[in-house]
Parts: sequence; C-alpha cells; structure tokens
Amino acid sequence: MSELTPTQVAALIDHTLLKPDATESDIRKLCAEAREYGFASVCINPSWVPLAAKLLNGAKSKVCTVIGFPLGATSTIAKVCESEEAIADGAKELDMVINVGLLKSGNSAGVEHDIRAICEAAHKSGVLSKVIIETCLLTQEEKILASQLAKAAGADFVKTSTGFSTGGATAADVKLMRDTVGPSIGVKASGGIRTLSDLRAMVAAGATRIGASAGVKIVEEARSGSPGTSSAPASTSASPKNSY
Amino acid sequence: MSELTPTQVAALIDHTLLKPDATESDIRKLCAEAREYGFASVCINPSWVPLAAKLLNGAKSKVCTVIGFPLGATSTIAKVCESEEAIADGAKELDMVINVGLLKSGNSAGVEHDIRAICEAAHKSGVLSKVIIETCLLTQEEKILASQLAKAAGADFVKTSTGFSTGGATAADVKLMRDTVGPSIGVKASGGIRTLSDLRAMVAAGATRIGASAGVKIVEEARSGSPGTSSAPASTSASPKNSY
Repeated sequence: MSELTPTQVAALIDHTLLKPDATESDIRKLCAEAREYGFASVCINPSWVPLAAKLLNGAKSKVCTVIGFPLGATSTIAKVCESEEAIADGAKELDMVINVGLLKSGNSAGVEHDIRAICEAAHKSGVLSKVIIETCLLTQEEKILASQLAKAAGADFVKTSTGFSTGGATAADVKLMRDTVGPSIGVKASGGIRTLSDLRAMVAAGATRIGASAGVKIVEEARSGSPGTSSAPASTSASPKNSY
Repeated sequence: MSELTPTQVAALIDHTLLKPDATESDIRKLCAEAREYGFASVCINPSWVPLAAKLLNGAKSKVCTVIGFPLGATSTIAKVCESEEAIADGAKELDMVINVGLLKSGNSAGVEHDIRAICEAAHKSGVLSKVIIETCLLTQEEKILASQLAKAAGADFVKTSTGFSTGGATAADVKLMRDTVGPSIGVKASGGIRTLSDLRAMVAAGATRIGASAGVKIVEEARSGSPGTSSAPASTSASPKNSY
C-alpha cells in the first residue's frame, strides 16, 4: 500500500464527527478541514446537514449523514423519512444501520426490506447508500448474511461499524465482507481506525472507504512519510467508544 | 419510602429493553413480564412497537418507545415522522432525546422548537411525552436550562438519561430537575437503576417514573421485603453502559 499518496489517503476518508454533543463550531471546523485536506466527505448527524451542505457548497468533499443511527432499531418508515429529509437538506451519502434485532430473530426478509427502502430513497435522488452491519454484534454467519442482504437490497457499500457499540473495524471482518460482496460494491471500514497503519491494513483487506475521526492526523502521517503504529490489530477488535 | 407496596413499585417502572440486538423472543418475554407484574410500560425501540402493542392489548401496561434515540441529533422532521409512525403502531408514551449539540451551541430556541414538535405530535393523539436531557453530557446550568426548555415546550416528563452515554441517573440530578420543573410535570430517572434501594433514592429525590431493565428483580425485592444494596450512589453517576 506504500503507493498511496497523501491525496489518495484523504480521498478514502469520511471525516467523521458523530458525538451527540458536537457543537456548531465543531462542525464548522470539520468542514473546513474537509475542504483543506480533500476528504471524501464529512460524516455528521442529520441535524447538521443543512449547515455542512452550505459550508461545503462547491467543494470536492460531500456531505454524508447517518440513518437510524446508531441502534438501527427504529421503524423503516422513520428511516425513510429521515433519509428523505437529509437528502432535501443536502446529504449526498447515507450510512444506514441495519435492524440487528430482526436479523437475530431470523427475519432476513424484514432486514432486506428495511435496507432496500433506504437504498431506494437514496438512489432516486442520486445519493449513495452505505449499509452498516455492526459486525461486533454479529456471528460470522450473521456477518455474511447481513452483507449478502445489503448487496441484494442495492447497497453501494457495506460498512463494518457505527463506532458506538462494543467494537470497531477489524481487517478480518473487512476481508470477510469483501469476499462476500465481491468487487462490484464498496466496503467501508469504520470504528477505531486512528493511524495510517490502521488505514493501510483495512485497504489491504479490501476496504474502499474509511470512516475516521482522526483523518487529519492520518493524512499528516502520510505527508510526513511516517507509517504510524497500528492501533487496530487485524485479529482483535479496536475499542472505538467515544473516539468516533 | 417504606410505604411503597410491590404493586406501587411496579407501577412506577418503565420495563426497558433498548439493546439493538434484542430479539422478538426477548420482546415477547418483556411484554409477558409487564402483564404479570403490572409495570407502567414496556420501553422498547420503535421497530418492536407493533408487536408489543398486540401483546399488550387490553393490559394495564402501556407501550413506550424512544424517539431520536440515543443521540438526539437527527432532524426535527425525522423525529416527528418517527413519532407519528410509532403512535400509528400503538405507542402511548414517547421518550424523545433533546438535541444536545444545539443546546451546547447556545441555540435554545432550536432545542425548544425540536422538543415542542414532538410534544405536539404526541399530544394531538393523547400520547405522553418524556424529554431526555442526557444529564451526563451537561453542566449544571445546561441541566437547568434543558429542563426549563422541556417544560416550556409542553413535556409531560423530563427524563435524566438514555442509558447509552457516559452515565446514568443520580439522585442529585433528579432533585435538580424536580426543583427546576416544579410539581406539575413528571421526572423520570433512568440509567443504572438496578435495585429497590436505587429506586427509593430516586423517588425520594423527586422521580415519579423509573426506567429500568431490572424491573422484575426490583419488584421481587419489594415483595421479599429486602431493600437491596444501592448500586447508584446519589453523588456519583452510575455507569449504565450495556445494562439498559
């Protein structure tokens, strides 16, 4: 992965701030950094989308927001409504959380229907959909099933984690998801990715997008040529709580 | 508080299961316990409201659900839509989370507008509104302001915590909220309340509703006459993570 330039690293990153107590000034700073570094997007909560869309008007960085976040356990209609409002407010990418409880109840059709409804709301407006499967709560079989359902329902990406549960991205999970969905859609690794070394491990495992709150630090590492030290070993889950 | 009978204790409790990986069988068990013990409500995520409404048809226990939960950072329109769908599905009580980020940005009008929109959606259908201020993220001044805004916006209850952030209910916060809102509306203590002793401390401080996942154990304590040991000292915040 040594061929990734700092610009290419930045273009992989959704520059993320999802803490409930983030303020307007935090969001303004995040958007300014996105413009400066050329991140793929800012990933923020829905109530900040109008402000971020205004601040990023004309910028390369998109506005990404989250749907049914972080529990994924609301009604499908509520997720669709939240999606439509976010799109009207200027969001170009939606990261939605699957209904984990339905999955664990054996209701695959319900999970797929829920995902499809949000993907359709996104696609009819030319907006990208990413589907968070929350790997830390799932068995290996459930990770595979959730990835298959997301792909079948029209997801543009499958994504590992919310960053608000018991664990974040692992290279092993990214590889499993990539092997499951094949090359035609994206895989986003998120949760606990704090260094350039972490990012490289995720990309090597098959990730095509990275969610991180440490994007500035990671790009600065790439600029300085320092590889950093991995904080998210491939075999164990990073603990992203309060870091994302 | 020794005068509280087991029946009275049960009638104070919102029997709560909000974990994203709760299954249909977990929800069925929760509802059966609510019928058996006479809890005030079951407090569940929105996607389970139709099932719980069916299971509790004709029961004393209501269906309570959560709105904008647990971050409170979605759009007002999304919260209203989620509320209306939950009400259509059979919810009789809505526990909504305030927009903490707006509060911390000094936008009190925005916070009040957000709360009022959900309270109005609830009240036009005869549904109760509880407003979660997430005390663990707030300063003393912010706790007072949030409680005032909730009352001004028409809340039926102010509620301490989601149980998904950095801390839960404290007797000191319950007292502060009760002193702020006066006697005309309710105060719900939630997060880290695990014993009869915890419940009594919250009621003594002014709470009129208790959110707990340990309701069965608490009522059994009341039945056996054992006061239990407090797990939530008044001066420090309990850590409710993953317990609620």
